[in-house]
Amino acid sequence: MDQLAGAVRRCGNPVVVGLDPRWEQLPAPLTNAMLGEPQERAGAYLAFCQQIIDVVAPLVPAVKPQAAFFEELGPVGMTALGTVIRYAQDQGLLVILDGKRNDIGSTAEAYARGWLGRRDSPWGADSLTVSPYLGEDSLTPFVNVATQRSAGLFVLVKTSNPGGGLLQDLVADELCVYRHVAELVDRLSAETVGECGYGIVGAVAGATYPEQLAELRQAMPHTWFLVPGFGSQGGGAADVAGGFDEQGLGAVVNSSRGIIFAHQREEYRGKYDDSQWQRAVEEATHDMIAQLQEGTPVGQLSRKLP
Amino acid sequence: MDQLAGAVRRCGNPVVVGLDPRWEQLPAPLTNAMLGEPQERAGAYLAFCQQIIDVVAPLVPAVKPQAAFFEELGPVGMTALGTVIRYAQDQGLLVILDGKRNDIGSTAEAYARGWLGRRDSPWGADSLTVSPYLGEDSLTPFVNVATQRSAGLFVLVKTSNPGGGLLQDLVADELCVYRHVAELVDRLSAETVGECGYGIVGAVAGATYPEQLAELRQAMPHTWFLVPGFGSQGGGAADVAGGFDEQGLGAVVNSSRGIIFAHQREEYRGKYDDSQWQRAVEEATHDMIAQLQEGTPVGQLSRKLP
Repeated sequence: MDQLAGAVRRCGNPVVVGLDPRWEQLPAPLTNAMLGEPQERAGAYLAFCQQIIDVVAPLVPAVKPQAAFFEELGPVGMTALGTVIRYAQDQGLLVILDGKRNDIGSTAEAYARGWLGRRDSPWGADSLTVSPYLGEDSLTPFVNVATQRSAGLFVLVKTSNPGGGLLQDLVADELCVYRHVAELVDRLSAETVGECGYGIVGAVAGATYPEQLAELRQAMPHTWFLVPGFGSQGGGAADVAGGFDEQGLGAVVNSSRGIIFAHQREEYRGKYDDSQWQRAVEEATHDMIAQLQEGTPVGQLSRKLP
Repeated sequence: MDQLAGAVRRCGNPVVVGLDPRWEQLPAPLTNAMLGEPQERAGAYLAFCQQIIDVVAPLVPAVKPQAAFFEELGPVGMTALGTVIRYAQDQGLLVILDGKRNDIGSTAEAYARGWLGRRDSPWGADSLTVSPYLGEDSLTPFVNVATQRSAGLFVLVKTSNPGGGLLQDLVADELCVYRHVAELVDRLSAETVGECGYGIVGAVAGATYPEQLAELRQAMPHTWFLVPGFGSQGGGAADVAGGFDEQGLGAVVNSSRGIIFAHQREEYRGKYDDSQWQRAVEEATHDMIAQLQEGTPVGQLSRKLP
């Protein structure tokens, strides 16, 4: 998380751009005359992600490729995913791989060894999202590998979807299930606290539940947050404000569709045609940065910059 | 689940062979003179899995490749995984892909579209394991795709690892968390019941918790079980007996290490040398089949065969 904190300070914002390529929504110039076969799609996804990275790399600290859209294409998609990860890092970005992986013991370790660490793993991501249903002994293998490789994790705690509450909001021993998970995650993170004050085990906590996000900020003092649900899922700057500490650190905020498919948003449609989709991406990124700098403690960061 | 029930009846047993290739444990003839680079490993994993499939295809209804060990190798591993899935199906086996995937909405759908369905998806698995932490709206996209493609799912309910209880055994509204998940899964499955009496949404329930397995059998009348934890994780025939219905259907039992690395087990070591590792696989499979036929309602099945 020291690397992430450094990148957030350097950029003066905590924006993570989610790379969720969806065939139906790609800008027309990238899919023209294509039939949509897996090999073609993989090529288009790669070009799309690289061209987004070209735009956002000077602006934001990290990108978050979504494994599902690449996996959907089979092995050719996975090859494209590997190329996207390396490309993003070559442009100076940190890469949070959104894979929501989990398993037990040595199987969890295999996932961790595969995904985590730039030099030591074939995929080379800087961090990985992990699901907690299997409990502590399913998380520790990820923590051990991440520790060895200066990588990070984000464990699902309170997710942004409406149905997440079914399980996460059940109350046991006077605490919601997500608070039990939060306790475990913060304990694991406390053992690996770096210079920035946060440990390597982060938490996913959605922008769509602002009260719970602020509650978790109090309950998880050692845990950096990855906050999805900004923009198209309905979360705004006021909703994510409670996720930050007083210095404007402690959280990164993800937007996927709102940025990468900005060319389809009402406010940019009239302004840019399909061939100018990258300019819509750039403007949407600047907009989100401005919203967070105005409406959250993130403003503290940019004021400190020269 | 009708396909699975049919295969179980045909074979007279519910054994699933877990394909968990681990580099350190591969039989020496498959790794001789190799350095362990990803490309080499992927080739060795493929050969290993194919040679296991050659042995077990005439004996058991299904195999369960573990995605993690292939993912660990990067894109070359994923390509090998695709080949393993197709090879197993060509030999007449059903393929349960153990990926423990999950996400929300259209992202979950991308995973489902990628993995599920022989004809319609690039990976082509017959079913997929899924994690439930994100709730009902994360499961329904998988259910919808599986329904359209005559494929199946196995949702994690009560896992076999010691730490699973941390979250799964929390008591909320007088029921353990895993029972809440069980209720959801059985409700989803009830909507898709086939001729065999079970729906397409199965549940993972470990052999290491025999009482809970029997309790779940009662609580989930529409749900087929995938039972891990047999053999090297400590579960025996008596432990899994409660997972079956009176006809000997309603559950398949997975063994990974106990079968695929049988050449390293005390009882087979003296009998077969490393070059005869496939004979150890064959004998271990027969042993497991016999244990289940003697110690569980599965005996009912074989007595019905000609």
